[in-house]
Formats: sequence, C-alpha cells, structure tokens
Amino acid sequence: MRKFILLFQCLDQKGIVAGISDFIFGHGGNIVTADQYSTDPQGGYFFMRVEFILDKAKYDRVALADEFSAIGKEFSAQWKIIDKSETLRMGIFVSDADHCLIDLLYLWISGELNVKIPFVLSNSEKHRKLLMQHNIPFHYVPASKENRREAELLSYAAGSTDFLVLARYMLILSPDFLKKYGKDIINIHHGFLPAFKGPDPYGRALKEGVKVIGATAHFVNDKLDEGPIIAQEVEQVSHKDSRQDLVRKGRNLEKKALANSILSYVDYRIIRHENKTIVF
Amino acid sequence: MRKFILLFQCLDQKGIVAGISDFIFGHGGNIVTADQYSTDPQGGYFFMRVEFILDKAKYDRVALADEFSAIGKEFSAQWKIIDKSETLRMGIFVSDADHCLIDLLYLWISGELNVKIPFVLSNSEKHRKLLMQHNIPFHYVPASKENRREAELLSYAAGSTDFLVLARYMLILSPDFLKKYGKDIINIHHGFLPAFKGPDPYGRALKEGVKVIGATAHFVNDKLDEGPIIAQEVEQVSHKDSRQDLVRKGRNLEKKALANSILSYVDYRIIRHENKTIVF
Amino acid sequence: MRKFILLFQCLDQKGIVAGISDFIFGHGGNIVTADQYSTDPQGGYFFMRVEFILDKAKYDRVALADEFSAIGKEFSAQWKIIDKSETLRMGIFVSDADHCLIDLLYLWISGELNVKIPFVLSNSEKHRKLLMQHNIPFHYVPASKENRREAELLSYAAGSTDFLVLARYMLILSPDFLKKYGKDIINIHHGFLPAFKGPDPYGRALKEGVKVIGATAHFVNDKLDEGPIIAQEVEQVSHKDSRQDLVRKGRNLEKKALANSILSYVDYRIIRHENKTIVF
Amino acid sequence: MRKFILLFQCLDQKGIVAGISDFIFGHGGNIVTADQYSTDPQGGYFFMRVEFILDKAKYDRVALADEFSAIGKEFSAQWKIIDKSETLRMGIFVSDADHCLIDLLYLWISGELNVKIPFVLSNSEKHRKLLMQHNIPFHYVPASKENRREAELLSYAAGSTDFLVLARYMLILSPDFLKKYGKDIINIHHGFLPAFKGPDPYGRALKEGVKVIGATAHFVNDKLDEGPIIAQEVEQVSHKDSRQDLVRKGRNLEKKALANSILSYVDYRIIRHENKTIVF
Repeated sequence: MRKFILLFQCLDQKGIVAGISDFIFGHGGNIVTADQYSTDPQGGYFFMRVEFILDKAKYDRVALADEFSAIGKEFSAQWKIIDKSETLRMGIFVSDADHCLIDLLYLWISGELNVKIPFVLSNSEKHRKLLMQHNIPFHYVPASKENRREAELLSYAAGSTDFLVLARYMLILSPDFLKKYGKDIINIHHGFLPAFKGPDPYGRALKEGVKVIGATAHFVNDKLDEGPIIAQEVEQVSHKDSRQDLVRKGRNLEKKALANSILSYVDYRIIRHENKTIVF
Repeated sequence: MRKFILLFQCLDQKGIVAGISDFIFGHGGNIVTADQYSTDPQGGYFFMRVEFILDKAKYDRVALADEFSAIGKEFSAQWKIIDKSETLRMGIFVSDADHCLIDLLYLWISGELNVKIPFVLSNSEKHRKLLMQHNIPFHYVPASKENRREAELLSYAAGSTDFLVLARYMLILSPDFLKKYGKDIINIHHGFLPAFKGPDPYGRALKEGVKVIGATAHFVNDKLDEGPIIAQEVEQVSHKDSRQDLVRKGRNLEKKALANSILSYVDYRIIRHENKTIVF
Repeated sequence: MRKFILLFQCLDQKGIVAGISDFIFGHGGNIVTADQYSTDPQGGYFFMRVEFILDKAKYDRVALADEFSAIGKEFSAQWKIIDKSETLRMGIFVSDADHCLIDLLYLWISGELNVKIPFVLSNSEKHRKLLMQHNIPFHYVPASKENRREAELLSYAAGSTDFLVLARYMLILSPDFLKKYGKDIINIHHGFLPAFKGPDPYGRALKEGVKVIGATAHFVNDKLDEGPIIAQEVEQVSHKDSRQDLVRKGRNLEKKALANSILSYVDYRIIRHENKTIVF
Repeated sequence: MRKFILLFQCLDQKGIVAGISDFIFGHGGNIVTADQYSTDPQGGYFFMRVEFILDKAKYDRVALADEFSAIGKEFSAQWKIIDKSETLRMGIFVSDADHCLIDLLYLWISGELNVKIPFVLSNSEKHRKLLMQHNIPFHYVPASKENRREAELLSYAAGSTDFLVLARYMLILSPDFLKKYGKDIINIHHGFLPAFKGPDPYGRALKEGVKVIGATAHFVNDKLDEGPIIAQEVEQVSHKDSRQDLVRKGRNLEKKALANSILSYVDYRIIRHENKTIVF
C-alpha cells in the first residue's frame, strides 16, 4: 500500500476529473482526498490535488508518471506525481531571532513536520548549540548587508535541499541567488503585507497606530516582500502595547503563519498561480 | 446551460469518484467544484458534493436522477441530485429579538441568500410592520411555555417550507413537532455549545467569568441544544463587560453563525453524519 | 445624582491624579471609572478620563468647570468636563451601501447608541423610505466626483451636529470642508489600513491574494485614509473567496469597527494624540 | 527611583482614589498606571491597582506599607504594597507534554518573564536534559493516579515558591495539598471551560463536532477545572481536523493562554474576586 499525490493544472475543460479518477481507478487505486479549484468553470484555469493509495506495490512513481503522461498531454496540463514516502529536504536560514526556528524544530521532533533538515545556516553563531543538540548540521556564514556571501549560501543550499525556509533571515536574497537556486523559498515577514514591506514593520505599525498587527508567510520572488502570500495571522493590539509587546505578540503570529505554511507545503497543498496561492 | 448538485455518501471504496465523474462527463457535463471527505479511506464513510454544469438543455433533474440510480445502487449509496435553479423555501420562527431576522432579510434582499420565504412566524406582534414592508406573510401565533400551539405552527410550516430557521425563537419544539415536520430545522443558540445549553447563556457566562463568549448554529434534534453543530463564532470579553455588553457583542456572533450556516445550507454544503456536520 | 466625565491631558508630572481625585472628592463626588495612560511616566504625555457621580444636584457642568480651571492651569493641561445627560448630535453621510447605516440605526433604536440624529444625508435617494420609518430627516444631495456640493453638505452639518459619521460615504471631503466643519468626522474604510488606501480595497485585496481582509474606522484628516485609526476588524479569507464573498464578509467587519468606534466616541473614550488614538 | 505596586480592594465609597493618590503624591511619588474597577459604584465592590515610582530612595516596601495602613483601615480595605524589584518564585509542575514548559522558558530566557524558577518538577524523566541546559533544578517525582506523592510535591514547593504553574501537569492536586500549599496555583486546561472539564477534552470536542476549540488558564481550586478563569484562547476547526490536528492547534492556544496569564500574574494584574478574575 503506497500513497501518491497528483498535482494537476490546465485550462478548465470537460472531463478532467473523469480522466484523472478513471486513471486512478484503472490502476486499482483509491482516492483519499481530492481538492480542486477553478478560477472560472468556463474558460478559466483549473487546479487539482489528488491524494490516492495504490494497493498493488508494483507501481512506483516513475512508472505511474509514465503511464499518466498521456492524460497530461490530452489536457495540455502541467502535472506532477509525488510518492508520499519520499521526504522533502528543507534548508533553514535564520538570523538572530530564534522563535520560528525553535517552533519548527518542535514540530519536526514531534513527527508532525515530515522533512529532512540537511542544515540550518545562520549569520549568527548563537544557534550552534541548539542544532548540535538536535544533530542537525549548522553552518555559520557571517553574511551581512555589505557582503551577503551568496556564493557560500548557494554552495550549501543548491544540491542538498528541495526548498528553503527563511525563518527570520534578515538579509535580502538577490535575484541572482533566486535564479541560481531555482526552487521554492518560503519567508516569514513580521508584518501584515502588503502593508509594512521592508524593515522594522513593528516599529512602523506602532507609529501608524494600527489596532491590529500581523505576520505573513510568503514565497520569495525578486520583489521585496511581494511574493505570493501563503498564510497571514493577525492580532488585536491597543495604545497600551509597547514596541516590545508588539514583538512578543508578533512572535506567536510569525510562528503560526510559518508553521502552517510549511505543513501545507510539504503536504503539497500549495499551488502557486500568478502572484497568488491556492492552499488546499 | 444548467447547474446541478450531486450529494453522495456511502462506505468508502474504490472507484467512487471515477464512477461519478465518468457519469458527468458522459452526459456532457463539466464539474464546477467537487468536495469530498472520508472518515477513513480504508473502511470509513465517504461523502461527496459535486457541482456541475450541463450544456445540453435536454437533461432535467428527474431524467438525470433516473440515469444516475445505477451508480447509486452500485455503491449502495445515499444520494440526491439537485437542480440549482430550484429555490428552497425557508420558514422563519422568531420571538422578540429581531437582529437575526433583520440580518437574514438583508442578505435576502441583496440577492445573496437565494431562498423563498413563505412566511415569518412569531409569538410577538412587533415584527408585523417589518415583514409587511418586505411583502413577506407574517403569522402571529401567541405561543408560550404553557401553550406552544404546535398544531398551529405545523399547519403553517408543513406544506409550505423545505426547512425552518429558528432565528431566536425562544420556545422549545417538542419531539412530536420535529417528527411531524420531518425536515431540517436550524437554530441559533446564543452560547458556546456544549457549554451553556438552555436558557440565559449570557447570564451564566457572566457568572462563570468566562473570557470568551460564543454563539452556535446547529440542527435541532429532540435533545435541547444538542443537535449537530454547523457553525460557531466567538469573541473575547473581559471583567468590564456587563450583561448588556455580552448581549450586544453576542448579537454579532449570532448573526454571523446563523447567516453562514444558512448560506451553506441552501447551497447544499452541509452534510449531517451521526451527530456531526461536514460543511464543505 | 448626575454623571460627569473629565478628559484631561498634559505633560506627565507628579500629583495629577491626586489633584483630580481630590477635586472630585472635595465636591462630594465618587469616581465610577478612571482610565489613564502615559506615553512615558518620566517626561512623556499623560492622558486621563474620569467618570464620576455627584450626589448633590447643585453642581452643573459650567459651575464644575469653573472651579476645576485652577487645576487645569496648575498642570498646563487641556481638559474638558462633560455632563453625561447631554447627548451628542451625530450627522450621518452615506452613499449607496446601507449596511452600516442599518446597523447604527439598530443600535440607536435599541437604546444602546445614545445620540441624537439630526439627519442622514446621501447622494442616493434609496434611503429615504428607511429614514422616514424612523422619523429621521433625510437630505438628498446629489453630490458626485464632479460636483461634491460641499457648501450644501456644510449647510446641513455645520450648526446641527457635534460630529459626523461617514457610514460608507464614497466621496472625499476636501480639506476646505474639513476646516470649515471643524469637528470630528469618523469614517469607515473597507480595507485594512495602512494597506489598501483609496478606492476598491476588496478588489485590490483579491488581486494581491491576501489571506486576511480588514476594515478600519478612523478619524478623517486632510490625507486620504490616513487619519488616526480608532478600530480595526479582520477575518481570514482563502483563494475560494470571490469578490462578492469579500464584500459580504467585509460588511460585518465594517459594521463592527464603525459601531464600536462610535460607541466609544459618544462615551468620550477616544483621545486623539498626534496621528494616533488612545481608546479607553 | 523605585517602582511599587499597590493592590487595593474594599466596598466602593467616596474618596478612595483621592485618598490613595494623595498618599502617593504626599510621598513624592508619581503614578505610572492606575487601573480600577467597581462592580457597582453604588454599593458594589471596588478594586484598584496602582503602579507608582518614588524618586526618593528612602522608602522601602515595609516603611511605605506601615504608613499606608491608616488608609487601609479608613476604608476597611484588603491591600498590599509590592516592591517591583522583588521577583516572584515560580515553581513549575509538568507531565509529558512539554510545549508550555518550553514556551515559558523562552519567555524567561528572553527576559520578558520576570520570575525566579526554583525548580521544575515532573513525573516524567524526559525533561531533565532540557532543564540542565538552563541550569534549573529538576525534580523527578514518579507521581501517578494511584500514588500522587503529594507530601513529596509539597516538600519541594512549600518553602521555595510564591506560586505554582501546572504547565500540563496531568494529575489532580487534592484539596489537602491545596490547603497545605496555601498559595496561588495556575493551571492550563486544554479545553474551552466550562465545556470539556476533566480528561481528554480534545477527544470529546471531536466527538461533539464543535467548530471551535479552546484552552483555558485558570486558578486551581478544590473543584476540578472550576477555578477562576484568567484567560481563554480559541480557534476555528472543521470536520477535516483529526484528533492530532486539534492537539497541534490546541498547543498554540494553551501556550498563549498560559503565558499571558503568567505575565499578568507576575505583574500583579490579576485580582481574584469570588469565582472570577479581574485582569487589569
């Protein structure tokens, strides 16, 4: 018994679900969950995520994909079949603030976050001890605004990871880095985007006198804090809240938005479409 | 072009989605949205809601259902096909408090709540003027704890409605009434069930010193405030909130929980299963 | 027995609370509630709101204020004494969307919103019937982007109101109008400021793919949607939510943020300070 | 410059605030924040918390209290003066689940939770390593339902702590223990009280099909899960959430409710009154 996920997107048209579910049924599979979304059933774009089990052990991912390609062609679709027993490799970049890092490690140790963590990389030495306790390789790279050391970052990340998480990494990654890395990067921004892009969002929230603060997990693209939003968390604040209070309240928002995003991501529940996300 | 909804539930087994989507595709239809849920893909119970359009005008609901019955039989399923152009008839019972009534009428007038309202019935005369303005028949039935006048209630509701909404109707309907009416009844309870069943939930919330209050929309069954929960809304309160503050804050919770439940219900997004609901 | 409110602000310094509470005690009064806030107890700015009852009927607001002025002078304070039995006059401007208007009228009729409503003014005729039912004067002023008819607006508002509420009034009021009117104006913006200033915030929220929408009640100043924020309400949304869904969900946020702001305002719980608000 | 807090409660009557603020002013102090609450200004009960600074170093807590006692007597009040430079000693009891423990330690290390932690005590050995890393004494007491070993618990807690936190301690403390310990104990319950008292609240929430789960921090008294509620946190759930999902979502609620309660407690912001709390 093996679990697979099919991700599928194409122009909306008749017979997609029938074609896909016939394929699964014809191979002796059973659909566990299926989610779909269409921007418009007449002329829009169609997205589907199907999780299914096959009780014959004879199909592996490659063989299945091979047979599925005819359906993909028929609908001119982009698609991917994932074997759920294969685990994604998640690299983590972090600067000083460690609350998101600790929260992710907690989920990982408890078995709820199913990833491999090839390394944690930081421009602060302070996390070394924590990572040693968890037997996770730690790379100290003294990157700074003046010297981002992106070649070094890339040398660690390129081959060993399937995606990166910026768990409060306070340096901007250049378009060149993004292009060379070429895979998904998830960032947590400690503000309610699209407001408060860039540095010191809590300070600016305080100055603007907002009554609600937020945190935003999003994919990184080459525009600062403008990548597709995955999750946002918010909380009421008042005139009594100091900057330190906002930071403390915000930590919980950041942890929650980032953790939920990564849990969805590693379960292949997030589909990027234009500058938005579909989160099944 | 006509829109249909299929509701389907049976023991989970292979080929359900394939069978259903083949049927739709084979009749020239296109799936608009499909939601499904299984309590357990191996040996559990399976639920599906499919919304689809048929571009040939030649199929009506009855003809479609006739042809679908073979699939229903194959999977030993309970199922129903609904023609979305047919509108449900919603009867409303209300006592003194009119905030939920006004909110539902607002949604109805704005065209967002797609129902017919054959009548509003109350044990208070005060709503007559409001209903006259909206050209909705108003029935005054002076029901009370001592005399619930259920025969009268039934005579209004039985033939003319597809479901009932208790929009703050403060009298309990007897098991006998429920049995004779025989269709769904949605109630809004001004407390966070399963806490605060029965009368005066805000008074008791105040006495217990809770820091969060709630409202619960649920189906009515023959146990007081124990029917399947559809939606719950909550809000923070503090020691400063008086009983009147709780009532005021609670009104918003009640309106939201009830309106969302009814919007889901009339779109056939709610499936009752045992004492719970699946809300797609 | 009469209830008064004292609003008081000055540079923070020793003895303020003692001076104020001695004054109240010395006049036979009892403090009902007292709220205070200091931006910094050493060198900051101090704000206080005291609600107190006097059991002798011999003091009226003017006499009290006269005697209090020595204390105001001592601390170089800005201050005001309000007799709670005097009711504020609230003018309402509204365009097409009537959900906030209806919500405010509900609070007003129920006796929870203690104001006089000298008029409702609109550039849409549609509200006339509603206002007639409530015996509230209705002024139709066909203002538009091309001709805002501000002289007319002012002629209605200037003498007859203590403050204005823009309950979804879709025209910008000019700095000249604001200056001539000279009193507080509370606006409800259907977006989560400082994001989504200006027109069509829901459309832009949809385009940005945010996962949370909001509404903001704020004082109007001469910069569009940049006046001091009073209250913000937010709600989770997803890729499934259409523009119409955002509008529907947003209505509840707008109603709540605006109603809470006005309830605080008429109870003198809001203090403007620089571009922020203190809401006791 | 030294910071003090005065907690004060008595029957509501005239002149309380004047008496207290005069006292502070007369000793050269400045009020930093003052909060008060009256259950009813005429005949009710009055509560006050005043934080003030004295710029002469010559007053210590004992001297101040000595001089204040006349005012306490005048109003027949219960009162207490606290020197903010003195730090409370917080003992922690914990069973297997460590998320609340880790969260509290994070706040403590970051300097935001100002307490001494004389020990963490557990009926599970698993936390020993974590506590060693933080140089906090760890006591392993193999208490169980059959043998709660309360004499041992008491021997650790009695002299060395000012209050106890049950950070997911899964054994009930007997009325005898509570009486002998005699100080405040704060518990986190993983359910939305007063619903779901007792064991396995998430399992029961799942069975009841609730759409909102909660966590409750409360003082412990001799009735199980019925002590005065301090804080409650809640979150929406759906039919899709498994027991494991509820547990994961609940962890964040538990951490937040407990942390906020303790932060308020150690800042003397919580007043117990009958079976409720006033949280300033």
